[in-house]
Amino acid sequence: MSPAAGHRPAATDTGLLSPVRAGTPVEAAVDDTAWVQAMLDAEAALARAQARCGTVPAAAAAAITAAARAADFDVRELALASRETANPVVGLVKALTARVAAHSPEAAEYVHRGSTSQDVFDTGAMLVATRALRLVIADLRTVADTLGVLAADHRDTVMAGRTLALHAVPTTFGLKAAGWRQLVLESAERLERLEGGGLPVSLGGAAGTLAGYLQYAGDGADPAAVLAELVAAFADETGLGAPVLPWHALRTPVADLGAALAHTAGALGKIAVDVLVLTRTETAEVAEPAVSGRGASSAMPHKRNPVLSTLIRSAALQVPALAAVLAQCLPHEDERSAGVWHAEWQPLREALRLTGGAAHTMVELVRGLTVRPERMAANLRATGGQIVSERISALLAPRLGRTAAKELLTRASSEAADTGRPLVEVLAGLDEVRGALSPAELVPLLDPAHYTGMAGPLVDRALTASGPPPAAGPGKASGTTGEPRARQRSW
Amino acid sequence: MSPAAGHRPAATDTGLLSPVRAGTPVEAAVDDTAWVQAMLDAEAALARAQARCGTVPAAAAAAITAAARAADFDVRELALASRETANPVVGLVKALTARVAAHSPEAAEYVHRGSTSQDVFDTGAMLVATRALRLVIADLRTVADTLGVLAADHRDTVMAGRTLALHAVPTTFGLKAAGWRQLVLESAERLERLEGGGLPVSLGGAAGTLAGYLQYAGDGADPAAVLAELVAAFADETGLGAPVLPWHALRTPVADLGAALAHTAGALGKIAVDVLVLTRTETAEVAEPAVSGRGASSAMPHKRNPVLSTLIRSAALQVPALAAVLAQCLPHEDERSAGVWHAEWQPLREALRLTGGAAHTMVELVRGLTVRPERMAANLRATGGQIVSERISALLAPRLGRTAAKELLTRASSEAADTGRPLVEVLAGLDEVRGALSPAELVPLLDPAHYTGMAGPLVDRALTASGPPPAAGPGKASGTTGEPRARQRSW
Amino acid sequence: MSPAAGHRPAATDTGLLSPVRAGTPVEAAVDDTAWVQAMLDAEAALARAQARCGTVPAAAAAAITAAARAADFDVRELALASRETANPVVGLVKALTARVAAHSPEAAEYVHRGSTSQDVFDTGAMLVATRALRLVIADLRTVADTLGVLAADHRDTVMAGRTLALHAVPTTFGLKAAGWRQLVLESAERLERLEGGGLPVSLGGAAGTLAGYLQYAGDGADPAAVLAELVAAFADETGLGAPVLPWHALRTPVADLGAALAHTAGALGKIAVDVLVLTRTETAEVAEPAVSGRGASSAMPHKRNPVLSTLIRSAALQVPALAAVLAQCLPHEDERSAGVWHAEWQPLREALRLTGGAAHTMVELVRGLTVRPERMAANLRATGGQIVSERISALLAPRLGRTAAKELLTRASSEAADTGRPLVEVLAGLDEVRGALSPAELVPLLDPAHYTGMAGPLVDRALTASGPPPAAGPGKASGTTGEPRARQRSW
Amino acid sequence: MSPAAGHRPAATDTGLLSPVRAGTPVEAAVDDTAWVQAMLDAEAALARAQARCGTVPAAAAAAITAAARAADFDVRELALASRETANPVVGLVKALTARVAAHSPEAAEYVHRGSTSQDVFDTGAMLVATRALRLVIADLRTVADTLGVLAADHRDTVMAGRTLALHAVPTTFGLKAAGWRQLVLESAERLERLEGGGLPVSLGGAAGTLAGYLQYAGDGADPAAVLAELVAAFADETGLGAPVLPWHALRTPVADLGAALAHTAGALGKIAVDVLVLTRTETAEVAEPAVSGRGASSAMPHKRNPVLSTLIRSAALQVPALAAVLAQCLPHEDERSAGVWHAEWQPLREALRLTGGAAHTMVELVRGLTVRPERMAANLRATGGQIVSERISALLAPRLGRTAAKELLTRASSEAADTGRPLVEVLAGLDEVRGALSPAELVPLLDPAHYTGMAGPLVDRALTASGPPPAAGPGKASGTTGEPRARQRSW
Repeated sequence: MSPAAGHRPAATDTGLLSPVRAGTPVEAAVDDTAWVQAMLDAEAALARAQARCGTVPAAAAAAITAAARAADFDVRELALASRETANPVVGLVKALTARVAAHSPEAAEYVHRGSTSQDVFDTGAMLVATRALRLVIADLRTVADTLGVLAADHRDTVMAGRTLALHAVPTTFGLKAAGWRQLVLESAERLERLEGGGLPVSLGGAAGTLAGYLQYAGDGADPAAVLAELVAAFADETGLGAPVLPWHALRTPVADLGAALAHTAGALGKIAVDVLVLTRTETAEVAEPAVSGRGASSAMPHKRNPVLSTLIRSAALQVPALAAVLAQCLPHEDERSAGVWHAEWQPLREALRLTGGAAHTMVELVRGLTVRPERMAANLRATGGQIVSERISALLAPRLGRTAAKELLTRASSEAADTGRPLVEVLAGLDEVRGALSPAELVPLLDPAHYTGMAGPLVDRALTASGPPPAAGPGKASGTTGEPRARQRSW
Repeated sequence: MSPAAGHRPAATDTGLLSPVRAGTPVEAAVDDTAWVQAMLDAEAALARAQARCGTVPAAAAAAITAAARAADFDVRELALASRETANPVVGLVKALTARVAAHSPEAAEYVHRGSTSQDVFDTGAMLVATRALRLVIADLRTVADTLGVLAADHRDTVMAGRTLALHAVPTTFGLKAAGWRQLVLESAERLERLEGGGLPVSLGGAAGTLAGYLQYAGDGADPAAVLAELVAAFADETGLGAPVLPWHALRTPVADLGAALAHTAGALGKIAVDVLVLTRTETAEVAEPAVSGRGASSAMPHKRNPVLSTLIRSAALQVPALAAVLAQCLPHEDERSAGVWHAEWQPLREALRLTGGAAHTMVELVRGLTVRPERMAANLRATGGQIVSERISALLAPRLGRTAAKELLTRASSEAADTGRPLVEVLAGLDEVRGALSPAELVPLLDPAHYTGMAGPLVDRALTASGPPPAAGPGKASGTTGEPRARQRSW
Repeated sequence: MSPAAGHRPAATDTGLLSPVRAGTPVEAAVDDTAWVQAMLDAEAALARAQARCGTVPAAAAAAITAAARAADFDVRELALASRETANPVVGLVKALTARVAAHSPEAAEYVHRGSTSQDVFDTGAMLVATRALRLVIADLRTVADTLGVLAADHRDTVMAGRTLALHAVPTTFGLKAAGWRQLVLESAERLERLEGGGLPVSLGGAAGTLAGYLQYAGDGADPAAVLAELVAAFADETGLGAPVLPWHALRTPVADLGAALAHTAGALGKIAVDVLVLTRTETAEVAEPAVSGRGASSAMPHKRNPVLSTLIRSAALQVPALAAVLAQCLPHEDERSAGVWHAEWQPLREALRLTGGAAHTMVELVRGLTVRPERMAANLRATGGQIVSERISALLAPRLGRTAAKELLTRASSEAADTGRPLVEVLAGLDEVRGALSPAELVPLLDPAHYTGMAGPLVDRALTASGPPPAAGPGKASGTTGEPRARQRSW
Repeated sequence: MSPAAGHRPAATDTGLLSPVRAGTPVEAAVDDTAWVQAMLDAEAALARAQARCGTVPAAAAAAITAAARAADFDVRELALASRETANPVVGLVKALTARVAAHSPEAAEYVHRGSTSQDVFDTGAMLVATRALRLVIADLRTVADTLGVLAADHRDTVMAGRTLALHAVPTTFGLKAAGWRQLVLESAERLERLEGGGLPVSLGGAAGTLAGYLQYAGDGADPAAVLAELVAAFADETGLGAPVLPWHALRTPVADLGAALAHTAGALGKIAVDVLVLTRTETAEVAEPAVSGRGASSAMPHKRNPVLSTLIRSAALQVPALAAVLAQCLPHEDERSAGVWHAEWQPLREALRLTGGAAHTMVELVRGLTVRPERMAANLRATGGQIVSERISALLAPRLGRTAAKELLTRASSEAADTGRPLVEVLAGLDEVRGALSPAELVPLLDPAHYTGMAGPLVDRALTASGPPPAAGPGKASGTTGEPRARQRSW
């Protein structure tokens, strides 16, 4: 087991293979040092909570708190030691005890008193997650605000709506941006539900009965009172929530984090794939922010690669699998699993930093996104009016019958596509149409800009709805307008 | 493309490879016929909603509703036809139109008016999901109630707490059952958040602008008014929720279903793996319900296999991967993806029926679970008191120092294990112990039944807390007792 | 447990939600009836193998073989019964025994003699997989042949090479088609390695020792001889391979199937996503086969949706997750897991039919694919020569230095893009260029058709290499040309 | 985009959350520094290959080779710079060029000549993978050898065979160890197929046509000759294989690595879960190697946690999801995807180091595994003979009929279990048995040690078969014994 510490410094992973998060704030917030600090924070908070309950001297709690600085610990050494005990806490407790003892041998007796590795690791993990989620949520809010401006500015900027890779009917860029914003708000709501609701402290002792804590509380202690007081104090000292039961083997908080992060990465991924298709050389309706040197190719001088959406998409492709690992860890046998618990750690961190990196990257993408209405208009015109075939079909339906009208438009569109003639011209030549619509009537009907449906009102609706405020919780959003009989929510 | 209909009946999948759901109610609730019915319900509700808005005659809506009976449609034929259009709605609309026309040619004109395949498919999917979730939630509630009784009955039934496969410290079966219940309640809460909050109707028209619906609403229609009215009426007619925006390409509802179902399958899987380890021949602390013929082996006459937990675990192993597929479908390019949308369908159904089958199976498992306190007691005694080594260590810590006390217990436990002597005997022979505790004091201290910590109060706490009521939303649960300063929630 | 058989027929899944495989041959090859037939084939082959070893009368083996017709069994009833025993074999053995007994009570004694459910189920699964793989491989070979013709026909059809969504440098459609073909050949090779190598029979008896088989072989039997003879005879009777050891808990064959199917679905998915991007309205360089009625939209008359690539992509999005479930089932505790084994069944079938459906669909896609060289040429011209900026940079490098040359081209391309002027014009105006290349020299240099590099020779190389023949095994392919010192293989 | 480099050192991940690989050789072999070195090796090898082809001066190639030392580069800076270009190669080329130029400005002109980021990154990745695979394979071979000794030593050590969590029939520990070994050999074979077959160099230039390389080769160069020569020289210089086609967008090598690593992690996970169930306190048939301090708990002095199998299992739970990400990246649009390529990098590394760490950990586990035949014997006796019920059933079948015999044993076993009486006693009291077998005959028949079937010969078979030698490829193994008519392979 004795891994050779080796001659090389232990910089095993500095972001080289994960540029979406390299150097972003969330990367530092979840790295090994941050994790050690959070576990130290948990140890210190536990001592202070026990001090509030009278089972640890206040001076000892203060000494432990003073010693709980990650900068004083050798993270790599802790990592190596973790192989002996299958978790980094045993080594951390030893090192912390030594540091405390250096100043106060008495206080050292109170380090990790009555506790177990999982209490410290999981509480630390929830602190790390809370800190990371705050960064992610802030970035998502900025993204949503920026998209709100884009949606309003382009409320009536007409572009091709596309389905199954083809032009379908017109839409607006404002509606597209409003949709992106909606999805981002839904992610933010899911993350806030976790962060704001209070990710829980872990407090169970050796096997979830808190027996060690109770033992140290002394003979006369009333278990129910100690339980309530200690859990509340620990939650208060950490700023985390108080769970109903110890969750050593009830892994909802971790599974929930996975699910919410997968949603967020996916929401950001939706924007990224849309930006990428709209950026394609032939389409060119949007462009990523132009920054000197950004997007350079090592081979092709003319390229300005859409690197931001590329990086975001790379995160979106990874996080669902990591979330699946976390969900698979719910079936966690016994009071603590041999292996299932341990499988959560790295995927949780990876999901946090990929998602956080993607959110941070998205801020820059949406803030500098170039929108090209003139290209949108040009592309709309490219199919010679076919993009509004649905409309003409609807107009002719009362006269010809729905099926016949649709078939007529199918034939006319096909002829227009094959011959390259504008659809208006083909239609104007058909008897069935001539009887219903004059060429002069047809021309404006075939203008894509006149067939955007409810795109504008939808943008308005989305910008005024904006989802339930986080405090209200889901299912309680009062609809803004017009849904007296049914429930509206921020899907 | 013309698949030979073949000579064989189209019974492609009747549950043979998925016994966890074979014949359970949820299986029927999500099968092809149920799906066709739900899509027909969507078409009928859309016509009625349009009738309420004045754009479809009431008689036509009634005729469409009357024709919308799945039993009259050939499901297999629809499945085969779906290959031509990449979804089953085009064929369904054609067949429905024909059936309506048989009674009322005028009404047939109003089938699917202004609509698009995705509106009908996704609304149908949400109806199917709603119906399935209700079954799942009801089963989960029954499971939780039964587990509540088990937890109360066994509040003080002592058993070994186990971590990393080994005896750790004592716990109670009541606390274990309370933990199972808590996890099931958390799943139920997540599913109710979706079902009760109202899974949304899909209403966007060809590319999410509702242009077709507006076109059919006539020239003078005010888009904002039509939008609000039509969405609300459609939601009301289906009993589903009204979304802020069309969600053709904003797939939160489907991703959320995946996440909540993965949680549920995982929660049920946690119970199953615990039952399985406790059922092992050497442990034998619980047994699945004894039913004649159940659990028979094709080879071994003496076996009574734990088939219910086996089936439940098989579901728990599959659903997270299906949920990951659904999360991966969030990056959904354009106004409707070519392929991403289509990849959701079967995994969504599979996740619903696996989870629903597991919940249904769990009802029977917990209702008939045999608990064997005498085996729990025997197993507790098997390690000769080592299971309370933590306690003795804590008791000696004030005298010897925490580290020295722990090392002493480590040595004594090791000697007890190697020699087979009871720990009390080994301890009684040690000078350090003799000075602190007499043999008469040691004996009760080493009784596992006296070291269950706060297990009893934790059971009480869990049974009175029982999670926030669904209507209140997460984050708003007022803790029942003792957390004046921190937040409590039903993790 | 008693699932109500219900009033509805048990058509739980006929392909409605999975059009990629609805009605394709592979769907029937893996459906419940096919699975029952394969398990019956396993029972019959086992009896015949035992007859060859002298432990079952030949007449009994013949009677069992005669009775082993799936059409005589109620598949749904077997599915329902499987809930009682966690697998369908116990019920199947009972039903088969009854059918045999109806004709020959003596023969009935020999049904499933010495065997166990897993031997029958897993052997049946390998038969199903073998039959399905043959269909898939045949379709892949057809696809590869067709792509070979496309590659040869379009060896020199110039089109834009695209990286990170943008035009990069020119390539040819022939090279693209050759790449698709190469990937399909690699999939076929992986499937043939399994099918041709012989998926193994399962023969272990109750817990992998074949004790039951040996018991029935009689007292004097030599275990080693019985083992060798029985395994070989069973493999011979089924046409499957003979494993070194019983693989009840050693799940390589299933994990390997998952991996090879995921590769295949992914390879087909690569072609599908390429077809989809090239089909986009603005690009339109390829089109799916035009078939009357195919690709119709329920809303938009003008659309011809690329439904084949849509369906194929939907399969590619699902199979990797199913394969991950199968890989996760490798850690299979004990001699037979409670739940892990059972979790494999449906994902294995789903992976087979999704992949097989995708392969079958791909045959039609590539056979009828419309390639539009004129659109390729038009799109190539759209960037005014920027697509060959790399070339000019390389030409100027010796004179200006590599870095300065690249920067010059970057500036010139940027100016061309911003102003809409052809790159040749911008370049011709630059002093650094004028000194090196005259306008007359520049024009042909900037012709994309003159900068396709080794595309042509690569097509030739791929079409002549064509991968190692399946019989030779990997790593033994003798390179076709030019690699005297290094290893070539069909990556 | 400008990530603040921050005040903290960039030790983002040193193994703290992944003890299974912390400090193991594979961790160093795949870390950021190793990756940079491999990319530098690729650049240097490319220059040398071009020198062999005459397109780069030999002195320049030598200068580039001399400068290609990772220790001279700031890995963190490269990671941060990678955000600007979505990959680390652009920055690396710049830095390498500068280092070369410091000694030889002329040579600097030849760095990355004609190349593209993906050629360098992917070739580097294949070098990293090759180096890591060698470590993994060596560890697997050691594991297999050790397990071979265990299997031979315990060829006849009887223990309970367990299925669905219950005692089934007897088996031997030797057969279990032989099964573990077989699975490990199958993993080794899969990895060797990749490593030994030659993971391929990547050589395609900007978009897979090698146009840049050809351009630099000069006007008169014959494309086919340059292609063959350059690919072969590059493969030779790197020691990697030569692909048929550039695989920028044909991702078989990466998907194959994922699949083989998932198999390996799963195989190791199988051993780990078996060790864990056999280690459980009530079973205690094996124990992990006893090392001072190993397996200590932070709470419970008596514990010796099975940390090695815990860590290995944690890896097995993660790798399949990572492999699924890699398989999902096969559908890679265009000549280089925006995001799909980038999503592969970190999962590939994570899969390599988790699997490699697990293999390294397994060496220690199997080398020091304590096997306790006396506990195996005691557990076998615990069910009073029921574990051989199958045997008695078989013996009575000829007299009573198979079904009646099995039912009789079911009843007798049930009575034995309910009353706690030995099965022999219950059986001896039954008329049907008395007529067939005397008590004196029954006793040895009910001895588990006499009913191990073919366990011994199976061990022999496995140890002599040992799988096809890697060089021969699958499907060519000549069976060792007794399969004249069917195919044997190392499943």
